[in-house]
Amino acid sequence: MHVAEIIRKKRDGGELTRQEIDFVISGFTSGDIPDYQVASWLMTIFLRGMNSAERAALTESMLHSGQVLDFSDLPAMKVDKHSTGGVGDKTSLILAPLVAAAGVYVPMISGRGLGHTGGTLDKLESIPGFNVNLSLPEFRRVLEKVGCAMIGQTAEIAPADKGLYALRDVIAAVESIPLICASIMSKKLAEGIDALVLDVKTGDGAFMKQMESSVTLAEVLVETGERMGKRTVALITDMDQPLGNAIGNALEVEECIGVMRDGKGPDDLVTITVELAAWMLFLGGAAKSIDEGRNTSRDLLASGRVLEKLRELVSAHGGDPRVCDDAAVLPQAKHKFELRTPSEGTLVKIQCEKIGAASVVLGGGRMVVEDLVDPAVGIVLHKKVGDQVARNEPLCTVHYNSEEKFESARALLDASFEIGTDKPAPRPLIHRVIQKGN
Amino acid sequence: MHVAEIIRKKRDGGELTRQEIDFVISGFTSGDIPDYQVASWLMTIFLRGMNSAERAALTESMLHSGQVLDFSDLPAMKVDKHSTGGVGDKTSLILAPLVAAAGVYVPMISGRGLGHTGGTLDKLESIPGFNVNLSLPEFRRVLEKVGCAMIGQTAEIAPADKGLYALRDVIAAVESIPLICASIMSKKLAEGIDALVLDVKTGDGAFMKQMESSVTLAEVLVETGERMGKRTVALITDMDQPLGNAIGNALEVEECIGVMRDGKGPDDLVTITVELAAWMLFLGGAAKSIDEGRNTSRDLLASGRVLEKLRELVSAHGGDPRVCDDAAVLPQAKHKFELRTPSEGTLVKIQCEKIGAASVVLGGGRMVVEDLVDPAVGIVLHKKVGDQVARNEPLCTVHYNSEEKFESARALLDASFEIGTDKPAPRPLIHRVIQKGN
Repeated sequence: MHVAEIIRKKRDGGELTRQEIDFVISGFTSGDIPDYQVASWLMTIFLRGMNSAERAALTESMLHSGQVLDFSDLPAMKVDKHSTGGVGDKTSLILAPLVAAAGVYVPMISGRGLGHTGGTLDKLESIPGFNVNLSLPEFRRVLEKVGCAMIGQTAEIAPADKGLYALRDVIAAVESIPLICASIMSKKLAEGIDALVLDVKTGDGAFMKQMESSVTLAEVLVETGERMGKRTVALITDMDQPLGNAIGNALEVEECIGVMRDGKGPDDLVTITVELAAWMLFLGGAAKSIDEGRNTSRDLLASGRVLEKLRELVSAHGGDPRVCDDAAVLPQAKHKFELRTPSEGTLVKIQCEKIGAASVVLGGGRMVVEDLVDPAVGIVLHKKVGDQVARNEPLCTVHYNSEEKFESARALLDASFEIGTDKPAPRPLIHRVIQKGN
Repeated sequence: MHVAEIIRKKRDGGELTRQEIDFVISGFTSGDIPDYQVASWLMTIFLRGMNSAERAALTESMLHSGQVLDFSDLPAMKVDKHSTGGVGDKTSLILAPLVAAAGVYVPMISGRGLGHTGGTLDKLESIPGFNVNLSLPEFRRVLEKVGCAMIGQTAEIAPADKGLYALRDVIAAVESIPLICASIMSKKLAEGIDALVLDVKTGDGAFMKQMESSVTLAEVLVETGERMGKRTVALITDMDQPLGNAIGNALEVEECIGVMRDGKGPDDLVTITVELAAWMLFLGGAAKSIDEGRNTSRDLLASGRVLEKLRELVSAHGGDPRVCDDAAVLPQAKHKFELRTPSEGTLVKIQCEKIGAASVVLGGGRMVVEDLVDPAVGIVLHKKVGDQVARNEPLCTVHYNSEEKFESARALLDASFEIGTDKPAPRPLIHRVIQKGN
């Protein structure tokens, strides 16, 4: 088999066979096929696309480039959730202990933040001592004991994806549905799960800003998961303004602990979390219907059992469990500033991507993979879209450690809030549910 | 400027600026931009194309990646010819001395054979002692003294093209009009010429087998040359059967010397050579019309002055000038075999690409750049398309040095000649002339 012939075939609009895809992926992983041939191949896929069979073959090939975990001996189903990423998207922090508290295992392998969106690992690491770099045997031990475990990508899981993503990033081949699909699904399917709930974000703060492309991605992800024998459901959820009020690592952990302690919190955060949990419980066999899943989830949150599960999780990962009782355990920024509105009216729009960028500028995220994050900094919103604001009322509080970074972030924040007169039409929090056969 | 942004722009169908193209080409030549980014970029160009301004910018950028020769102090015009390659295509060997004999300088930088088509350098090197690897000062000295000089690509001329071609070859990005155009024109325009005649072949033995794609390539080449201030004309010539009778390096040299000695030879070879020469003389100011150019060319061939010019050229390049008088000076194959027809009738078709492949198999060409060629081997046709053949009459003579190679070549040759009953409609030798404004 010749790589150039495989590139030529896709270049001319042909369909690649499983063998051809395996040949490129295994050659890339072993280093036998040079980057420049893989780069050209990726660009042909970007421009020519892949059909359903090709996407499944690519996903499977990347999945089998490394170790596939097997938790089939554990006495309940294993379900995970994956989000395409957004600003203030912190649902994983609540979902893992919630679903585990309901008796369904959650073996979660997450990523770090990049660009304007945050990452679960960075949030977890703001908890003093929390170790996301468990070995796979440790991961299994925590999962078995607690019911959930949350780690970062390891070298053993889908190694082809790491190299392919780094290459796609520098050759302008990121925003490709088949490549995104294979990247997400190869990692998730390596987790040894029975079912997967996808949170595909849509709107200004999402990777896919248009509903149409979000739906296409969701359909492709669901189809690929189902094709590989895993129950897969995608919720298209709104990301036209930040989710919840907190944006920033420790600030988001604090907000999540509030929800787990009080059973309530920002409406959008609680609603979307409960909806995702309901689907996870339903697919994991812990609820007979979505409605039962919703009720169970709300009950668990109100009972304090989710917070207790979080405490177990934090302890098992070496973190300080006192975080569950006292937010002061989390890193605190040195300075706070209240950004106030210059005029009165209705908050008609929050530029979600700009708010995410402001958090990055403060030090809370990273522009390149190598950046270090400051766990303490971030933004807490006091108003959300549709709220009335009086003149000089605080829109948000900025938590910062550097005056210089604050000034840059402030310029972004000043341009992020749009005050008008007419109340905007409300956007639904859950736009659509995509599952097999619909 | 970021390479990924430039790739993205072309990927999404945008038009690249001269600065963006220069940035990639100079970064590639210096090694600052890695191959994998250039590979992805080349594939976007392959699939998205380039408009006229982009093609000219790419050509100019590649041209200026190295040295641009300047022969403006020489007392006549400088004209070259470039062929897109074919089987038995040997016109350069006659054209250089012919046009020089008419007082127009021919500074010719040629290539080697690859695949089923031969290359001028390989043919020249079958002349004992002929050195095609002159330095640029030696090239100039021969040109000044003889009126023509024939060398291979040097490291100083359009170095970007060498690297880009090697990359295109392994990433399936060869057959792209803008990339082919920039590759050809950057090298030719570096020769310090005033005008260029292009011989764009069409038919079974050509790189472009369809008339439509041959015309498109010709138009693009002419437009790019004219845009860069050089008079450029393209002749679309027939390559549906080998040109002349000889295929193979020394055999083709012998055939050309025959034409220069006798003023005549195979009709197709003489007609196309005279036509190309006529245009070269016209553009080079040595003929007032194409018709005058034709007459001058035929007269020069008949006068023996072209052969004398070849003798000067061979001597200046260190070759044995006795080749002009005695073909026995050329390497001779150990064995000959006459392939005879099994039936009588009309020769209705010669599979031109198969004949070329047979010559390669005998050792006369190369499949990969590193192959060595055997100068002595090849095929001499005794019949051309449209000829009547009696049963058991010789179709061609195979010159070979290895029984094993002969057997492989014979299988190809057996399948190359098609005998039928109806005389096929004759194909014109010159299909079209493409020049500015037509």
